[in-house]
This record gives sequence, structure tokens and C-alpha cells, in this order.
Amino acid sequence: MTPEVGPSAGAGVAYGIDIGGTKVLGVALGASDRILFTARRPTPAAASNTTDSIGRSVAQAVADVVAQLDAQLDRPTDSAAAPQLPPVIGVGAPGMVDRAGRLRFSPNLPQAHGLNWHELLSERLPERHFVIENDANFATLAEHRLGAAQGYSHVLMVTLGTGIGGGAIVDGRLSVGGHGYAGEIGHMVVDPAGPPCPCGRRGCWERYASGGGLGLLAREAAMAGRLPAVTALAGGDPESVRGEDVTAAAMAGDADAKQVIEQVGWWVGFGLANLACVLDPSCIILGGGLIAAADLWLSATRAAYAELVEGGSLREPVPIVPAAFGEQAGAVGAALAARHGGLWS
Amino acid sequence: MTPEVGPSAGAGVAYGIDIGGTKVLGVALGASDRILFTARRPTPAAASNTTDSIGRSVAQAVADVVAQLDAQLDRPTDSAAAPQLPPVIGVGAPGMVDRAGRLRFSPNLPQAHGLNWHELLSERLPERHFVIENDANFATLAEHRLGAAQGYSHVLMVTLGTGIGGGAIVDGRLSVGGHGYAGEIGHMVVDPAGPPCPCGRRGCWERYASGGGLGLLAREAAMAGRLPAVTALAGGDPESVRGEDVTAAAMAGDADAKQVIEQVGWWVGFGLANLACVLDPSCIILGGGLIAAADLWLSATRAAYAELVEGGSLREPVPIVPAAFGEQAGAVGAALAARHGGLWS
Repeated sequence: MTPEVGPSAGAGVAYGIDIGGTKVLGVALGASDRILFTARRPTPAAASNTTDSIGRSVAQAVADVVAQLDAQLDRPTDSAAAPQLPPVIGVGAPGMVDRAGRLRFSPNLPQAHGLNWHELLSERLPERHFVIENDANFATLAEHRLGAAQGYSHVLMVTLGTGIGGGAIVDGRLSVGGHGYAGEIGHMVVDPAGPPCPCGRRGCWERYASGGGLGLLAREAAMAGRLPAVTALAGGDPESVRGEDVTAAAMAGDADAKQVIEQVGWWVGFGLANLACVLDPSCIILGGGLIAAADLWLSATRAAYAELVEGGSLREPVPIVPAAFGEQAGAVGAALAARHGGLWS
Repeated sequence: MTPEVGPSAGAGVAYGIDIGGTKVLGVALGASDRILFTARRPTPAAASNTTDSIGRSVAQAVADVVAQLDAQLDRPTDSAAAPQLPPVIGVGAPGMVDRAGRLRFSPNLPQAHGLNWHELLSERLPERHFVIENDANFATLAEHRLGAAQGYSHVLMVTLGTGIGGGAIVDGRLSVGGHGYAGEIGHMVVDPAGPPCPCGRRGCWERYASGGGLGLLAREAAMAGRLPAVTALAGGDPESVRGEDVTAAAMAGDADAKQVIEQVGWWVGFGLANLACVLDPSCIILGGGLIAAADLWLSATRAAYAELVEGGSLREPVPIVPAAFGEQAGAVGAALAARHGGLWS
């Protein structure tokens, strides 16, 4: 059996890295798909930077995470032999990432349009190769191969964070679309007269059914006087109410706050019903930060889905379940793709 | 070379049948994918019938069409040998058709829920086998293999008729979803406060972007006094305005009518932009009855798509083109699947 650390370690080990909004997270996956160790760095702030400097500083953070993983693989032993470092590294990035590893568009990162992750990373780590993909696509891969969607050939994964990310398994394979942009489901417009979205349109699904959407719906309710306790908690100004305030109040039993969160749950189910019309998944996986408060909204989501999906009870029921990998899903999926040398499709 | 009709004819010939709202259409496809001949029967009226009697009468119409095709294959010749009749027949049906050939749900055919096409057809034609699938899925297959989407691995097809049908090629293969219901894209809700839909929800895309949607938007405009000429044409009652009246007036140059049709074109582009977020197609094919008037609305669709799709000009442009096969697409795709002995996926 090959040792997992020390000299001649590294055989079968794969690295995956997820560039998130707040942190760059790396995992080393052992040959048996166990997470051997992790590494992380804060994501350099993007505000007021140029595309080039954002790119360079994020790429440096990725290189630092890789160095941390290498160091953990190279634990001191009696032997002088260097460990076998994984030659291919999977890297998940937010937004519309094309087949050449370029960020074409990311609503929340307009300064970074045009970034070539592949070039930037190859400059810093010239001896490594990279498989670069949208982060939610990698998360979907992880849940399908090792997590909550194992055994299903048609899977929809939705990550509910500040915005919404998504990915789909179609006929057993990760579907990234013609250019790599499939699964940008947060920007389906569900109400053309809805609130503006950083993507430039109005009424995108993620304006309602995400952490950001929770804040938006909460401020709307607060301004209408429907969230007195939460508003008091936030200092009395309805404009200052944040999603976290509502979650905290709801967990403490505040009925008004619970209602707002259930409204978000309804919007999640509404969008899932729309997506079921398009993709007909056999299994729906929900991940992202909002899933931590699932007790407060998941039953509202399931009820809305059952009521709204075309055909209703005439079609087969579909499980709607939380993701297994939490915040590590993107990095784990990246490691799986790295081991495979690319995506399966 | 095997003769295409007469004794020992039939080798390589495939039959495809499309059960439409007004007619049952059959095609015989030669070994070189040329349409050898066609057959048709009116679709028996469904109104006020029971599920059983609708099923029996439609199945009989299909059997009649098959008999017509058989008769054409069996042209009189000197030889007494019977032709080789295709043992497998592809049949496209509207609505949500499951893997066993059952109609699970069809918004416009509520009397027929639960129909088992497979059983009904096997009773009438016990010596034949059937490949049964949603009609728009078969149309997508035809356009991908032989029509306007040849060479593309990621295709979205949208049929704009009374309602909207759809299908998708994902990674080169027809994607029918986990249960066969993928591509029911007309029932994505694009406005939760929109007009009611026969499916039971409100604001479905097909309420705006179809032949039925054209009528709805036209009556709305007529009642607001914005379609005086068309209203006069329809006898003076705004409630009597039909989509066909608007198309006729627009073709004759009426500016008000043109505006309503361009509004439908905008809604088509709006929905395509939503679907591009989910599927990221490299090519979009538009079919169905509305495509005959494409000169009046297709440029509005392309403009709306370009403006509304996430990433806009930062992403690769996608051709939006009319289908090549017109009303025969569903039957041709059914024949291709029959020859293959099933779907490719």
C-alpha cells in the first residue's frame, strides 16, 4: 500500500482549489477519496483594483495554497526522497469561465472580466497543469461522485449563497454547456418587473432565493412594518436589516422573521419547479451558506415545489436534499476532475 | 443496391409518426434518410371524451397511418414477395411522456392523463414494436441529425405553436431527463402574477411567446384600443381578436399589429436568454407554426436575446435560426429513433 504522506507519498493524491468570495480553499484528496488535509488563504479584496492586479493577487493566493498543500504532503521522514507532487490541479472559480480558463463574466466581479486564470496560474506554477471550471460545476461533480447525489443520472445542484450557483448532471455526466456557462441559473429572470440585479437585468431568481434575496425581502418587510423585532435588533433602521438578523431572530422563535425566511423558501421551490420543466432531474441537491438554516425554510421549498412543478402529483416525486460536502464541495470536485485529467464529458 | 419500394424493399426504411393536435402525420424514411412518402389522418377530437375512448381513437388513427405507409411500401410488382415491413415504429406524442410510453400530464389534454400509448398501440399492431417519446424531443433529434443543428453538440430547440415545446441536445445527445419530461420549457413561469395557464400555474412562458400568447397579447392590446384596424377586421369585438388576425394585418403592413407581434418576439428572446443561463447552447433552433411569420418577429427575438442574456456581448454569439424540417420534424426524428431501436442516450 502506498503511504499517503512521506517519501513516495503523493501517488494517487489529487489537489482541488476553490476560489471563493472570502477565501481560497484547497483540499488534498487521497487515492481512496478521503480528504487528507486542507489549506486556505483569504481571497484578496477586489474593490477598486484593476483586472490585472486582482488576477495577480488571487493567483498568488492560489499558489500559496498549493505550497501549503505541498508542504503537508512533504512531511519530514528518514528518507531524503521528495514526495510525488500532483502534476494536475483542479481550480474552481466563480462566474462564467470559458473552455480556455478565462473569466468571461461574473456579475459580482465586474473588475475581473477577461481574466485568464490559466495563464495567471501557469506563470506562478509553471511545473503544474490546471483544470479550471466554474465552482458550482465542481461542487455538483463532488456531490454526484461522492456526496448526496450518488447513483442518480440526472441531478440538479443549486448553491444558495450570496447569490445562486448551479450545476447539472445529465445522463450521468456533468453538463457544462457549449462554452462552459451552463448552470448560471441564478440569472433566470422570474419577474421582469423585479428588483435590479448586478448582472444588469431585473428580477433574477437570485434576487429572491439566496442570502442576498433574504436581505432584500427582509428590508422590504421591515420597511412595511412587518418585522418590528428584527428592525429593533438592527438598530431601528429598516434599511439596515440584514439576512443574518432575520435568521438569528427566526432561530430565536420570532414569527415575523420565520415568515420572511419561509418566503425565501417559497422562491427557492418556485425556481426549482421552473428548472424541473427544463431539466427533469431525478434528484435535487441544495448547498451554499443558506443551507445551514435549512430547518427554517426547506419544508416551505418542498411544499412550493410540489405545488408548482408541472404535472404536480402526476409526476414522480423528486427528493430535495441538502448537499453532503458543505463549503468543501467545490474543492473536492476540483480534485476529482484533476485526478481524471479533465472533465468526464 | 436495395430497391426502396417493391419486393425486398423496406430494408433500411424507418417509420416515424407524430401525434399532433390536428393531425397524425407519418413519414417513411429511406436508408439514405430521404423522406420516401408520407401519410396522415385527422387527430380524433378529444373534447368531452373519456380517457379510454380518446386513447382508442387516436391509437386507431396511428394504426391507419401505419397501414397507409405499409401500402405505399408494398407497390405492385412482378414478384409475389411481400416487402420487409419496418418492425420498429417511432411515435411522438405531446405532453409529459414517461419511459414506459404513458402520458403523465399534458396541460391541453387533461382528459388523456394516464393513457398508455405503448399498450394501446401494441394492441392494434401486435407485430410491431414502438419507440415512444415527447414530440418536441423527436423534432430536436431530427434537426440535430439532419437539419439546422447539424454539427452542434449543445442545441436548444423551441417549437412555437399553440403552446411551446422544447428539446435539448447536451454533449451531442438528446437529453430527455430523469423521467422523459425534460424540455417542457413552455411552463417555466416568467411572471408569477401573469395570466392563468391551462397547466394550473400563472405566467408560464407559453402564455406570452407562442401562437396562443400572440392571441392573448393581441386581445389585451385591442381592449386597450391599441389595435383599431385588427379589431375592425375581427368584427369590432376586441375579445374576438385572434393571433391569425394580427399576423394577417401585420403582413398587410398594419403598424399596430406589427408592434404586437414584435412584443411576442421580445418574449421569445426573453425566454431564450433564461434558457441560455441554464443550458448554454451553441445553437438555438426555432420551429412550430409561428415560424412561418418569422420575418415579423425573429429580429426582435434576436435583439432581445442579445440584450438580455447574461454576459451579453462578453459571451460568444449564438445563432438563432429557423428549423429545417417544418411540420415533419417530429415524425422524421421518430423515424430516426425507430431505426436506431431507441434513443441514443
